[in-house]
Amino acid sequence: MQKIGTIHSGFKEKFGIPRQSGLIDNLSEITFEPGFDDENAFRGLETFSHIWLLWEFSENSGEWHPTVRPPKLGGNTRMGVFATRSPFHPNSIGLSCVELAGCTKRNGHMVLTVRGADLMDGTPILDIKPYLPYSDSFPNASRGWTGDARVQKKPVSISESCAVPKEIDGKMLEEIKSAISLDPRTGYHDEDGRSYGMLYGDYNVEFRANRRGETDEMLILTISKKSKNNA
Amino acid sequence: MQKIGTIHSGFKEKFGIPRQSGLIDNLSEITFEPGFDDENAFRGLETFSHIWLLWEFSENSGEWHPTVRPPKLGGNTRMGVFATRSPFHPNSIGLSCVELAGCTKRNGHMVLTVRGADLMDGTPILDIKPYLPYSDSFPNASRGWTGDARVQKKPVSISESCAVPKEIDGKMLEEIKSAISLDPRTGYHDEDGRSYGMLYGDYNVEFRANRRGETDEMLILTISKKSKNNA
Repeated sequence: MQKIGTIHSGFKEKFGIPRQSGLIDNLSEITFEPGFDDENAFRGLETFSHIWLLWEFSENSGEWHPTVRPPKLGGNTRMGVFATRSPFHPNSIGLSCVELAGCTKRNGHMVLTVRGADLMDGTPILDIKPYLPYSDSFPNASRGWTGDARVQKKPVSISESCAVPKEIDGKMLEEIKSAISLDPRTGYHDEDGRSYGMLYGDYNVEFRANRRGETDEMLILTISKKSKNNA
Repeated sequence: MQKIGTIHSGFKEKFGIPRQSGLIDNLSEITFEPGFDDENAFRGLETFSHIWLLWEFSENSGEWHPTVRPPKLGGNTRMGVFATRSPFHPNSIGLSCVELAGCTKRNGHMVLTVRGADLMDGTPILDIKPYLPYSDSFPNASRGWTGDARVQKKPVSISESCAVPKEIDGKMLEEIKSAISLDPRTGYHDEDGRSYGMLYGDYNVEFRANRRGETDEMLILTISKKSKNNA
């Protein structure tokens, strides 16, 4: 098994990465290692709207356990590791369907642009395959223990006292707000009122959840350029 | 990367394996290596109707080329390897969605029964993941260069002179007929009238295609127990 490429995404740490692909419209780029960079190897890929990324959970320690505690179940219930999409399978292969937004050559090198990836910046890519709806799409497949709950995005606002750096354009700000709308807190030891920090691109994003009736409202407190110390 | 299990399927050689999963209702069983055989690791898996198999194209020589010639395009047109589901990717990881038909313990060992697998008997399994329709199902994804042609199953009949061995039950005979209905010939050097042999389970199946108007009709000529010599 060899690394064929690398994804470059806004998510610089595990905290804040969506728990599945396709939840937000973030753009990421994939570049390729020498030898896998041949444009011929991608001929025809641009005709597909969606592709599979097979990738390596590179942050894993290599240890796995028969059961895991999915955040979706509150962190208290154990499920078999093969009944989950947990990163801690015996073989650390990630599987994500993403939209293909671009397939181009830049300075002589292939670059794929993908939308909706749930991968941390720097994640090694093991394979690219076209998504084929007739063999991959089963809309009526059961959701099993994950149940019928849709991911609820929470409303996000930016604190009046937050100065948004002017280098952050509208697209980038939308990506940040979308990531925060998924409520990156772990789900089973949430603390309303406490502030959390998330790295996105070159920025630290500080946010807080405020309980409002039945739901939480997310409030972005500060967005600041990462200093060299916490890069 | 380590083998966690093995699939046991009716397809004993490459010839005759459907070109994608889900085309026929064949049942296969997956058994697990020591250490991956813990029933706790499968807890909750039975709540899913569909699962992903990640597996190794174990028959590959290890060589890959930037372009391949998909059978679907008649074998003359080259496509980039990453734009195809060809077995010859740099990392030989296969990806197949199958129906989960059973998840049980037999003689103390976990056995998964799956329906619709396009894997050769003995293929090493690398990972099992639940299929999650909300992150894996995109029915409107484009088919890209693969086009809109549905797989056409061809009519299959059994020659009057064919003696079906009595050990072959109705289910097994249906699996054989389904596999033949997909017309296992390669598509670009088909020869009508010539007879072909396919191994299925413990049997040699000899068949022929006869041109009838716009389509081919498949005719099963003989079904015979594999002798020790050609096992």
